[in-house]
Amino acid sequence: MNFTDKIVSTIKSRRSALCVGLDVDLGKFPDILKNEKDPIAKFNKEIIAATQEYVASYKPNLAFYEQFGTSGISDFEKTLSYIDDDVFVIADAKRGDIGNTSKKYATAFFDQYNCDAVTVSPYMGEDSIGPFLDREDKGVFILVLTSNKGSNDFQMMKLENGKYLYEHVIETINKWNVKKNCGIVVGATHPQMFENIRKMTPDMPYLIPGIGAQGGDLENTVKYGFDKERVLALVNSSRGIIYASSGSDFAERAAEEAKKLRDKINELIGL
Amino acid sequence: MNFTDKIVSTIKSRRSALCVGLDVDLGKFPDILKNEKDPIAKFNKEIIAATQEYVASYKPNLAFYEQFGTSGISDFEKTLSYIDDDVFVIADAKRGDIGNTSKKYATAFFDQYNCDAVTVSPYMGEDSIGPFLDREDKGVFILVLTSNKGSNDFQMMKLENGKYLYEHVIETINKWNVKKNCGIVVGATHPQMFENIRKMTPDMPYLIPGIGAQGGDLENTVKYGFDKERVLALVNSSRGIIYASSGSDFAERAAEEAKKLRDKINELIGL
Repeated sequence: MNFTDKIVSTIKSRRSALCVGLDVDLGKFPDILKNEKDPIAKFNKEIIAATQEYVASYKPNLAFYEQFGTSGISDFEKTLSYIDDDVFVIADAKRGDIGNTSKKYATAFFDQYNCDAVTVSPYMGEDSIGPFLDREDKGVFILVLTSNKGSNDFQMMKLENGKYLYEHVIETINKWNVKKNCGIVVGATHPQMFENIRKMTPDMPYLIPGIGAQGGDLENTVKYGFDKERVLALVNSSRGIIYASSGSDFAERAAEEAKKLRDKINELIGL
Repeated sequence: MNFTDKIVSTIKSRRSALCVGLDVDLGKFPDILKNEKDPIAKFNKEIIAATQEYVASYKPNLAFYEQFGTSGISDFEKTLSYIDDDVFVIADAKRGDIGNTSKKYATAFFDQYNCDAVTVSPYMGEDSIGPFLDREDKGVFILVLTSNKGSNDFQMMKLENGKYLYEHVIETINKWNVKKNCGIVVGATHPQMFENIRKMTPDMPYLIPGIGAQGGDLENTVKYGFDKERVLALVNSSRGIIYASSGSDFAERAAEEAKKLRDKINELIGL
């Protein structure tokens, strides 16, 4: 089964298109974890146990683990071990380098950590993405139109041929997607672009950040971002779910928020 | 002293504009290290001890350490401890994410690992670079025109205003460079572009990969990439130096190659 079909099948069998971002931040952790020896692993373990039934996917962002050096990477590895096999794991790493180097990043995320997919930046072009695309069993979410303000700086530049740079990136990804293992990252803060993007990529899975703390528009994102026939998108929420409470009920409140958002998405897409 | 002045001062005081890339690859390691308990740390320790007098900078590429998970990151940390304080350390990480996430990457590379500079990708725009630029004491090398074939896919796209995307990236970086802590990455495989780029950024330090295994043109790169008044560029070589020999003389041969390249650069720039 190729990566695209695997996404659809995971979303359908788990009845969820929700991705929960595991962006660990000690400053936002509940007091109850203050005296834990390993608060990050403990926090993620409880969050995952409480929210897992409502999600299709988890997306740990590497920056939040790398900031602590080896101990952070060890927490990242522990976190992965708490996630069930049929839940999709996306390493949000936004990597990309010359070919022989990207190959090592592919080894890191696909073999060493055994994640299902990784996010990558397109700026360095084909050979920087190739080593990820070579892996038929794994997926690559390529940055196209991101959820932040800075997406206007380069992604929205008009090219000589009248297209936006992000549209040219999409057209190029369409050529690369021979093994049907490409996805794209499109921020929910650009709902007006989704209709055009879905036309350009009818069969491509999206990873959609920007709901919640970043102010994205869920209704319009779902209306245009999801296609009618197949469920080809994962909607991510990080802070809005995992920091729903800083009390001792943090895991239960995270579960409530995850269920609420999952149900809302399901209602909108008719899943 | 700002980052730009610090680069110049380091290059002058060490009489070297050479950066050695520490891209560790077990497959290329000398047989003599095969039975070492910690071959990566041992290899880097010997390479650094042998080459340090000829370099201005080391550039460990994170992919080569991340591929081994926590043990790789531990080797990265050990490697940093072998490098003298007055040698510039550039974490070649090519990171970049939304603001609150890039902030964590800045913490990782500037505080946790205490590197002097980091490489970042511009695709996500201003707020993805901002947290790195906020650090007056540290430097950021932003990808502009990279050394690989894929640099043609997006960086060389013509914009509506007739400029290449990479030129627009440079103009934007010029606006961001308030604290004089921006550098740019320009591949030695594009020597014909250096004259134009140096005109656009007379006072900006360059990190120049692509010499050696990637086939870059040292003479023309130095001719146009370095300015006449100040030494504002670091020329990187990785494989050509650290894998000069796979015999027991690997460290001595690496030192020979480092000295040779340093002298060649110095001759060309008159340092």
